[in-house]
Amino acid sequence: MYGLIGKMTAKPGQRDALAEVLLDGVSGMPGCLSYVVALDPTNADALWITEVWDTKESHEASLLLPAVKDAIARGMPLIAGMDTSTITEPVGGHGLTSAAEREERRAEQTIIG
Amino acid sequence: MYGLIGKMTAKPGQRDALAEVLLDGVSGMPGCLSYVVALDPTNADALWITEVWDTKESHEASLLLPAVKDAIARGMPLIAGMDTSTITEPVGGHGLTSAAEREERRAEQTIIG
Repeated sequence: MYGLIGKMTAKPGQRDALAEVLLDGVSGMPGCLSYVVALDPTNADALWITEVWDTKESHEASLLLPAVKDAIARGMPLIAGMDTSTITEPVGGHGLTSAAEREERRAEQTIIG
Repeated sequence: MYGLIGKMTAKPGQRDALAEVLLDGVSGMPGCLSYVVALDPTNADALWITEVWDTKESHEASLLLPAVKDAIARGMPLIAGMDTSTITEPVGGHGLTSAAEREERRAEQTIIG
């Protein structure tokens, strides 16, 4: 697996708008197992993004998806700077779900419900 | 939601053993929405743990679960030090699943399968 832990700073007062843009783009990205946007409680402009992908290639391919390209275009003007970006090698845990699994689950719930 | 992003250093050569202990304890913790253990590709002894909980209280309660207490007791001798620990306020994303939802899904899959 391929992971990213990043911290970015929004332009003053733009953190909520940036979080919304980041969350807009995340549904259904192939190979994305986890994507969490979190506020930094110690800095009103800072945001954390933690990501887990099946492979580095899936992450790179995601940047070319129309929805992600659109989110990047809308997000860029809201970002003051990237503070840290760390690459990790996730080995396991709880909450690692592919978009395909999620769709499957939704379909099952529709059948049952 | 309540989040944690932590980096710890294992004693030399003990990282895989520590990762295994950390992953042992994670299934079925009430209120845990995501718990990912990742290796640091730039440091052979360093590990990242990213967590999302429904509330801070759920995280604190988890530390008293017998399986978690046991994992802590087994993990402590393998840890050289805690490098960073950051509290976050997750606002959303993909891959946030409670143990209850996971059990429910498993039950559904058993019914269907």
